[in-house]
Amino acid sequence: MTTTPQSRNILLVTAHPEPRSLTSALASFAVEHLSAAGHQVQVSDLYAMKWRAALDADDFPDHPADRRLEVLPAQGAATRAGRLSPDIATEQEKLLWSDAVILQFPMWWFSVPAILKGWIDRVFTFEFAHGPSVPPPYSEGALAGRRALLATTIGARESAFSERGAHGRLSDVLHPLQHGLFWFTGMAPLEPFTVHGSVDVPADRFAAAKRAYASRLDRLFTDAPIPYRTLTGGDYDRDLRLLPGTETPGTAGLDIHLRA
Amino acid sequence: MTTTPQSRNILLVTAHPEPRSLTSALASFAVEHLSAAGHQVQVSDLYAMKWRAALDADDFPDHPADRRLEVLPAQGAATRAGRLSPDIATEQEKLLWSDAVILQFPMWWFSVPAILKGWIDRVFTFEFAHGPSVPPPYSEGALAGRRALLATTIGARESAFSERGAHGRLSDVLHPLQHGLFWFTGMAPLEPFTVHGSVDVPADRFAAAKRAYASRLDRLFTDAPIPYRTLTGGDYDRDLRLLPGTETPGTAGLDIHLRA
Repeated sequence: MTTTPQSRNILLVTAHPEPRSLTSALASFAVEHLSAAGHQVQVSDLYAMKWRAALDADDFPDHPADRRLEVLPAQGAATRAGRLSPDIATEQEKLLWSDAVILQFPMWWFSVPAILKGWIDRVFTFEFAHGPSVPPPYSEGALAGRRALLATTIGARESAFSERGAHGRLSDVLHPLQHGLFWFTGMAPLEPFTVHGSVDVPADRFAAAKRAYASRLDRLFTDAPIPYRTLTGGDYDRDLRLLPGTETPGTAGLDIHLRA
Repeated sequence: MTTTPQSRNILLVTAHPEPRSLTSALASFAVEHLSAAGHQVQVSDLYAMKWRAALDADDFPDHPADRRLEVLPAQGAATRAGRLSPDIATEQEKLLWSDAVILQFPMWWFSVPAILKGWIDRVFTFEFAHGPSVPPPYSEGALAGRRALLATTIGARESAFSERGAHGRLSDVLHPLQHGLFWFTGMAPLEPFTVHGSVDVPADRFAAAKRAYASRLDRLFTDAPIPYRTLTGGDYDRDLRLLPGTETPGTAGLDIHLRA
């Protein structure tokens, strides 16, 4: 007996200025692999789209030019009125359409490239991704039901990001994205897919990276997400602090926010 | 007997689209306060400068249009040749001139706004901020001798970023900047200056914030930096892993990288 995998909707956001880069090659591979598996894929190639990175008053066409710009209220008003800049509205529609989101990027200074940060800053608006009009943050949030995968190429070797690595554990370095962005908005983040030593990737390592990526993409909807705690699960007090004694014995640092 | 404080050079980088914002008000206050204390201050107001956020081939005027853009080699070649885009070269000169750098920004999605990430991505080039032509990373790095202060306004309450806060400790959330950017390039990061609950700051809280900021600015060159370990101190192995038993008893998570 075989099961037919369900066709799903996947948004792939990619951010590299060079169409012949490793990032672009991995993005193309992901699109081909997911399409061949019967999924629907939309791509936001931020450099090709000339995505505007800096959030400003142009995000809100109805905002009076002479009024002081308060970012959260302006985002909320424009979101509720359906009057966000069209480039933002288009990306929000893709997010709502998606069952999974993949961010494909080179790690620059221990985070996403600025153009991708600008996609986050401008698209995840107040009252769309969080706020009183949408479900509460963490696990039940506005984008609940969607899976999220960081697919990143990293110049440094893996050991530097290991449990005792000088750069910090990769899970800690990526916490602002995995927990701060994805989990906060209700998405289910998976373990990141990484290619280390990305400054020079010869053919054999590229082939191995594609095999590893294919395996991760095949399990995009079946791998267990990172088991972050929920705000509604009774683990936190009203000031958003983990209740004493709640953490799994032996955990410390950011791991106290993981379920057993 | 009184001592005359030494005049120092301070670069303040600020990033908010609204000149009447809390961020802009705090930036102006810092400039006035530091100038009144006899220091020299240069300001990079990224929105006012229309700073280009997205790193691309235009950063490297000599890069042939038809050649594949490899970011690190292109940065290295342009940096060594003194042929970076003039906007980048100007910011690098300010960094070299500075004795301290302050980044003034609203925390958006648990990090800096995209335009400020773009300042980091584009200005901290290979062979300027790190690389074989400059001193090795961490403590002795290219920008050694400079102090670094994150001055950030945060919408969420302080408890959410406390030791057991749901968002993660602030020190962990800011680790990619404090350790990944500043410490990696040799700078001495200080404890961040923060204003929480920044969505609505009435006059009394603003006055208190200015007093607290003034006190931090007065100690910009005397406060002890965060005591991160050095790579040359014998604490790490060749694969950049902290040697077994090196951590201070009782520390865990990213704190293992702190000296006692």
